[in-house]
Amino acid sequence: MTRALFVGRFQPFHYGHLYAIETILKQCDELILVVGSAQMSHEHDNPFTAGERIEMIRAALNAAKIHPDRFMVIPIPDAPAHRVWVSAVESQTPRFDLVFSNQSLTRRLLIEAGYEVKFIKLHERGKFEATEIRRRILEREDWSDLVPPEVHRIVMEIDGENRIRDLAKSDSVNNRKH
Amino acid sequence: MTRALFVGRFQPFHYGHLYAIETILKQCDELILVVGSAQMSHEHDNPFTAGERIEMIRAALNAAKIHPDRFMVIPIPDAPAHRVWVSAVESQTPRFDLVFSNQSLTRRLLIEAGYEVKFIKLHERGKFEATEIRRRILEREDWSDLVPPEVHRIVMEIDGENRIRDLAKSDSVNNRKH
Amino acid sequence: MTRALFVGRFQPFHYGHLYAIETILKQCDELILVVGSAQMSHEHDNPFTAGERIEMIRAALNAAKIHPDRFMVIPIPDAPAHRVWVSAVESQTPRFDLVFSNQSLTRRLLIEAGYEVKFIKLHERGKFEATEIRRRILEREDWSDLVPPEVHRIVMEIDGENRIRDLAKSDSVNNRKH
Amino acid sequence: MTRALFVGRFQPFHYGHLYAIETILKQCDELILVVGSAQMSHEHDNPFTAGERIEMIRAALNAAKIHPDRFMVIPIPDAPAHRVWVSAVESQTPRFDLVFSNQSLTRRLLIEAGYEVKFIKLHERGKFEATEIRRRILEREDWSDLVPPEVHRIVMEIDGENRIRDLAKSDSVNNRKH
Amino acid sequence: MTRALFVGRFQPFHYGHLYAIETILKQCDELILVVGSAQMSHEHDNPFTAGERIEMIRAALNAAKIHPDRFMVIPIPDAPAHRVWVSAVESQTPRFDLVFSNQSLTRRLLIEAGYEVKFIKLHERGKFEATEIRRRILEREDWSDLVPPEVHRIVMEIDGENRIRDLAKSDSVNNRKH
Amino acid sequence: MTRALFVGRFQPFHYGHLYAIETILKQCDELILVVGSAQMSHEHDNPFTAGERIEMIRAALNAAKIHPDRFMVIPIPDAPAHRVWVSAVESQTPRFDLVFSNQSLTRRLLIEAGYEVKFIKLHERGKFEATEIRRRILEREDWSDLVPPEVHRIVMEIDGENRIRDLAKSDSVNNRKH
Repeated sequence: MTRALFVGRFQPFHYGHLYAIETILKQCDELILVVGSAQMSHEHDNPFTAGERIEMIRAALNAAKIHPDRFMVIPIPDAPAHRVWVSAVESQTPRFDLVFSNQSLTRRLLIEAGYEVKFIKLHERGKFEATEIRRRILEREDWSDLVPPEVHRIVMEIDGENRIRDLAKSDSVNNRKH
Repeated sequence: MTRALFVGRFQPFHYGHLYAIETILKQCDELILVVGSAQMSHEHDNPFTAGERIEMIRAALNAAKIHPDRFMVIPIPDAPAHRVWVSAVESQTPRFDLVFSNQSLTRRLLIEAGYEVKFIKLHERGKFEATEIRRRILEREDWSDLVPPEVHRIVMEIDGENRIRDLAKSDSVNNRKH
Repeated sequence: MTRALFVGRFQPFHYGHLYAIETILKQCDELILVVGSAQMSHEHDNPFTAGERIEMIRAALNAAKIHPDRFMVIPIPDAPAHRVWVSAVESQTPRFDLVFSNQSLTRRLLIEAGYEVKFIKLHERGKFEATEIRRRILEREDWSDLVPPEVHRIVMEIDGENRIRDLAKSDSVNNRKH
Repeated sequence: MTRALFVGRFQPFHYGHLYAIETILKQCDELILVVGSAQMSHEHDNPFTAGERIEMIRAALNAAKIHPDRFMVIPIPDAPAHRVWVSAVESQTPRFDLVFSNQSLTRRLLIEAGYEVKFIKLHERGKFEATEIRRRILEREDWSDLVPPEVHRIVMEIDGENRIRDLAKSDSVNNRKH
Repeated sequence: MTRALFVGRFQPFHYGHLYAIETILKQCDELILVVGSAQMSHEHDNPFTAGERIEMIRAALNAAKIHPDRFMVIPIPDAPAHRVWVSAVESQTPRFDLVFSNQSLTRRLLIEAGYEVKFIKLHERGKFEATEIRRRILEREDWSDLVPPEVHRIVMEIDGENRIRDLAKSDSVNNRKH
Repeated sequence: MTRALFVGRFQPFHYGHLYAIETILKQCDELILVVGSAQMSHEHDNPFTAGERIEMIRAALNAAKIHPDRFMVIPIPDAPAHRVWVSAVESQTPRFDLVFSNQSLTRRLLIEAGYEVKFIKLHERGKFEATEIRRRILEREDWSDLVPPEVHRIVMEIDGENRIRDLAKSDSVNNRKH
């Protein structure tokens, strides 16, 4: 049995993530979805809590008929030092055999730790991006075509559009500090 | 839809946990299994990492034919202060409606935060206990009747018996510190 | 009795803060002044320690004849995650009924936690601002008209002008790291 | 002007603390009351949050007609290392000239840092002790003669008696960990 | 070239450590001495700061004519989780080939991480032990025969005997908390 | 005997550092080299771990025939608050008499703590700078004339050039977060 790891921040989860997961699941039996920077929320680039992101991912994968046996979702906060991040991931996840990631730091850390790390073929990169979704929400454009309907529903239920707009009113310094 | 929370340390997961989960699942649609003290491992009372515990839980619930749609497993480290622990749990889990716990501190914190917290009816308490399992491993008695076979297999695969015995050789001070 | 909360960084305390406090005290019986980002000091935007800021606030409010029974000053460090910040505040302050804040993130977090959060009517905003004070100190302009005389005296006693000028010599990276 | 420091955990604030403060105030102009171990609450030896303790102290000193100009109350969490604790206190409090403490570690750390540390003459030590109060609450004995009436009222308002009793039900391990 | 690792707390450094280091240096070219629990000091089992311990070790090894080219001393604080401790050590030390340790947890963690870990042959164990030294200091017995004269001198210079005796006056709870 | 402190990040160690150390050693008997921001690595401005930096420093000073008795190398992570950083340094290093630093924040913190802090006369500043080395590595220019040969060798052994280039591929947000 092959168990793979896929690290993302999912701010929010969108069709680009969904297509990537469907592709990866053809190459492994089980997939660990790591919700990275799990401690972060309520800031411009990271509006949603790990719990909200987990709820989105499960709802979206369920609607996409991906069998829940095939994946698990685990939140991992940033480590106090990059060099110990892989060890922190290993301690919070079941054993895994290979990793899928396009992010340079993530790739580098896992490769230095001895893991095989594969690139993910992205579907319409530039269209399906969390940055674009947050931009559209800020500018009150329609963003519903970029995410599964379940993600849209959850963002509306938690008043996520207003959260993103409110946070944008803060200046950059105060956005990070009280 | 009712989503419930069940907090445990699962050091290791045993039949007592399994029966409790089966009972709770009759009273809710979806269950969040919180793997508490997730940062702990390699100590006498907490031998297994959160990742190892998640692996045990998923394997055991799968073998027990509990549909993976009905539950999710989320590791939560201890908070730096009890008073913020509920808030930390909320930030790392999907929204939940009620909680099942028999542990006094957990109950108290969640009740003070406004949650409904129900007791769990335990099956042969005193027999199915993690303390008893660790004691048997230490004293080289058979412990396989206390856990699902999948848990036993994983503990053997990760050399968990020897880990528990090795840790017992440390004196109490050094067991906690390098 | 109504107890209100007012969150600020007070880097340093100035007349804008004083007028805001006088206005708020007409709408509540007791005011908790939270000195936010309490762990920060010795950086460009946060030159003063929480202790120095508390000393300034008490001296200024005392000189303004605000009865010490009406307010208390409590330092609160930034939380490791925004989502637990409200819980951290609640754990370190007496119970409060409403909040005064114009800062978007602070407002958002407290509103999501269920608090009533009111805007503060600011007096000559743009003139009485900590940024302006720090700018004038850097450029050796007179800044004494922006703060109560007690604040000016304390800044001079702790050699605060030179601290701000020295920190400006560091490049941005080294300013934050040793 | 002489400003003194007095460190306590105040779990809860009792007449012994009050008499000590009255004595100390004869030897200084202003007193900083440090609420130590501020991050702790909801455990057997530390049942109350820093915020609850601050509320108790202010109410009791107010009722005792101690002028609020003479004291301030500041919560200080435990430092990650004893050796940096004095520095952490200094960063969160106004400058102080001398310290009152009977606790050996506190005394030692402050003396090594160069402070003058005086002993506090205690009033009926053995009677007025937080340990005794918590014991009486646990065993449902009357404890109202050990604390100012305001402290008793606040403990009742926050359901503090039941909190202490509930926490006692936990075994020692689970009392500290989830 | 073979570089080895030796982990100890050195509270304080004594002849047992010295003999062990002399033995180990016959089996490697260079030795990294890890001062473990580096954040700890001013408590009964850990009276000395990492800096004080480093000073003792260097003075003692220098007096023993061990060439400073053969060893280095590096302080490592306890990790927030045992499972990431090896990774934390690796990030703060030059690359190493093998480890010498008799401590069960240290051994276990390093072995699980893939290192070769050898036992250290101890010289008169039971006599040369830090616990015995601290006991003698507490009871005002002579302890100078257990440590190199340089260690004795440094302990006297930093008033270490009185520190240990003062800390013993605290009760166990207050010894750890302010 | 005079013991001095020199704080740097050494990302990586270069001839500028070496010349500074040779100059400083004329003014003291023993030098503590503090490897600052010790927890940082794998980011654009801080590519190397503290362990890698220690290895570089020892190899370079050894090759430069600086007697190992004259210096020691100690990693110090950034403190959670600038105001406690000096105290953290003091707790992890042998006692020191004076400090050499050109960095404004470092100087300010140590001066406020009462230390004598001297400027370092730099040799060809602008040429021998870590920023320039990292830039050359990124742009595949020769950088071997800026560092001692031992440093160059170690960077090659740990595949450091590719690490720096890989990290540069990350966008600024993802470079810091997973």
